[in-house]
Amino acid sequence: MLPQEMTVIEISQPGGPEVLKPAPRPMAQPAAGEVLIRVAAAGVNRPDVLQRQGMYPPPPDAPDYPGLEVAGEIVALGRDVARWKVGDRVCALVAGGGYATYCVAPAEQCLPVPAGLGMAEAAALPENWFTVWTNIADRGRLAAGESILIHGGASGIGVAAIQLAKLLGAGKIYVTAGTDEKCRYCEELGADAAINYKTGDFAARIGELTGGRGVDVILDMVGGKYFTPNIKSLAEEGRLVIIAVQGGPKGEGDLSLVMRRRLTVTGSTLRPRPVAFKGAIARALEEKVWPALADGRVRAIIDSRFPLEQAAAAHARIDHGDHVGKVLLIV
Amino acid sequence: MLPQEMTVIEISQPGGPEVLKPAPRPMAQPAAGEVLIRVAAAGVNRPDVLQRQGMYPPPPDAPDYPGLEVAGEIVALGRDVARWKVGDRVCALVAGGGYATYCVAPAEQCLPVPAGLGMAEAAALPENWFTVWTNIADRGRLAAGESILIHGGASGIGVAAIQLAKLLGAGKIYVTAGTDEKCRYCEELGADAAINYKTGDFAARIGELTGGRGVDVILDMVGGKYFTPNIKSLAEEGRLVIIAVQGGPKGEGDLSLVMRRRLTVTGSTLRPRPVAFKGAIARALEEKVWPALADGRVRAIIDSRFPLEQAAAAHARIDHGDHVGKVLLIV
Repeated sequence: MLPQEMTVIEISQPGGPEVLKPAPRPMAQPAAGEVLIRVAAAGVNRPDVLQRQGMYPPPPDAPDYPGLEVAGEIVALGRDVARWKVGDRVCALVAGGGYATYCVAPAEQCLPVPAGLGMAEAAALPENWFTVWTNIADRGRLAAGESILIHGGASGIGVAAIQLAKLLGAGKIYVTAGTDEKCRYCEELGADAAINYKTGDFAARIGELTGGRGVDVILDMVGGKYFTPNIKSLAEEGRLVIIAVQGGPKGEGDLSLVMRRRLTVTGSTLRPRPVAFKGAIARALEEKVWPALADGRVRAIIDSRFPLEQAAAAHARIDHGDHVGKVLLIV
Repeated sequence: MLPQEMTVIEISQPGGPEVLKPAPRPMAQPAAGEVLIRVAAAGVNRPDVLQRQGMYPPPPDAPDYPGLEVAGEIVALGRDVARWKVGDRVCALVAGGGYATYCVAPAEQCLPVPAGLGMAEAAALPENWFTVWTNIADRGRLAAGESILIHGGASGIGVAAIQLAKLLGAGKIYVTAGTDEKCRYCEELGADAAINYKTGDFAARIGELTGGRGVDVILDMVGGKYFTPNIKSLAEEGRLVIIAVQGGPKGEGDLSLVMRRRLTVTGSTLRPRPVAFKGAIARALEEKVWPALADGRVRAIIDSRFPLEQAAAAHARIDHGDHVGKVLLIV
């Protein structure tokens, strides 16, 4: 028998980490096509911070409390769920509501906990890997032998992106990061060169590193202020994929360069996409990335773990910006 | 026997139309893979104007005098030309040198004069149709049922783009043009709605016309100052294809819109591309568009004809901006 109540981490009002507070809620109920997961661990992501600050309202059908990914055990099934059964250990991408002791997830957005990994490691995977897969493999079309520049190389997205680029056979992997320590970490993880953006001009450095050619793909989360240097850093037929605009939305750039070098500027956000779209990514990840997690070619990279009730401390760590890899909440 | 000299239209110095002057040159010689065409008609294009003004140097291997397309009879073959024979009536895309009584062209960039068309009509086709094919069908991936906004709808590119969009089964075709007369002309040619950009805000009008959805593809030759309204006019997964920056290269836009609507901003210039690339377009045009020219579904649209020696007058007409369709030089 499931308890009638669960604990969630509410955003008591928009603000700093301290507005995150545990609160009781009625037990979540899985609808058709959904499963109910007893959460063992939940990932903390930057969109959660924006949501906490009141700058990123959750989609209409999502819970009002944050959390985009969980790992745990399935404890109940909605109608029309064929693949999973009660007791299965899964991790899942959710549109919200992961900061809780129980969480519903669309069955299609669940993946098995990879062989050999614990619940915490599994909870560190969905948001980053769904995001890098759809943006680097699908939208950016990174092909074997091509080069990529990954901004924010030491972030959760960054460390997944470095590993995905390796897995896809990238020729050269370049990253930017904000400290020399983070740069060294990215190089240990597989980056061919890491650029400290606080002490150097990344576009000039990419020019040097590529003999003036530029890179084939850029994964960017800065947006506006990086638009011009990003375009300058792309080779002919290069693709800039924008997944966040942490440096502001407004960008100015030389569109004749876009035309003459036949560049592609694009981007996407995963959260509002339909379940079927996310389900297709889940199947691609299960086929292409999960075996590499099981045999150790790819790792879940964890920065730190906090008890669920201390979500405020976890957010403070993200706000501070020192983390490398995933910050987790442990139930 | 071919004469030892031919007449070309030289750019005597950068400047206005009057700098274009007839001059004798030694007869052109076809290299391996090339044919020599006795020119019957040559098209006048906007890049010729930029080249005349000293703002668009021709590619290194191209003649120093302008002209990007011709129609005429093949009078000599270089080595390794299998498809064509002396006497064949062809039109061709060339990287320069079309303003002349004779012109060499890569055999791969030649197409037969479509059944039922004269030489002048054939000369009006290559530059516009190679350009709209590679940018709308290939790069913009316009699919049947999708909507398109074509800027400069009454230009040579515009009238080809309207007809190609129809041929590809576009759901709705919108254009901009600079006079009400040009707008009516575009609507007669098949545009569902034409927007006079001098008297209205095209982005607002596209919003109204599409019920706020936006269009799937935009073909743009304005660049910088249209970047923001173009992005606003695109539907989710919409593609902006930039083929010229007549409104300046610098564009400022909201990159969060690119990301949230999963837009693609891209573009290309045809002239510097390799022969094999242009040859592939030629084969696609021959298969998909040439039958429609033969049966009248697609027309070559001619604005005016000038004798070759009066190239200056032809450029003056382009500079004035009143033309609808192709301005031609007739030998």
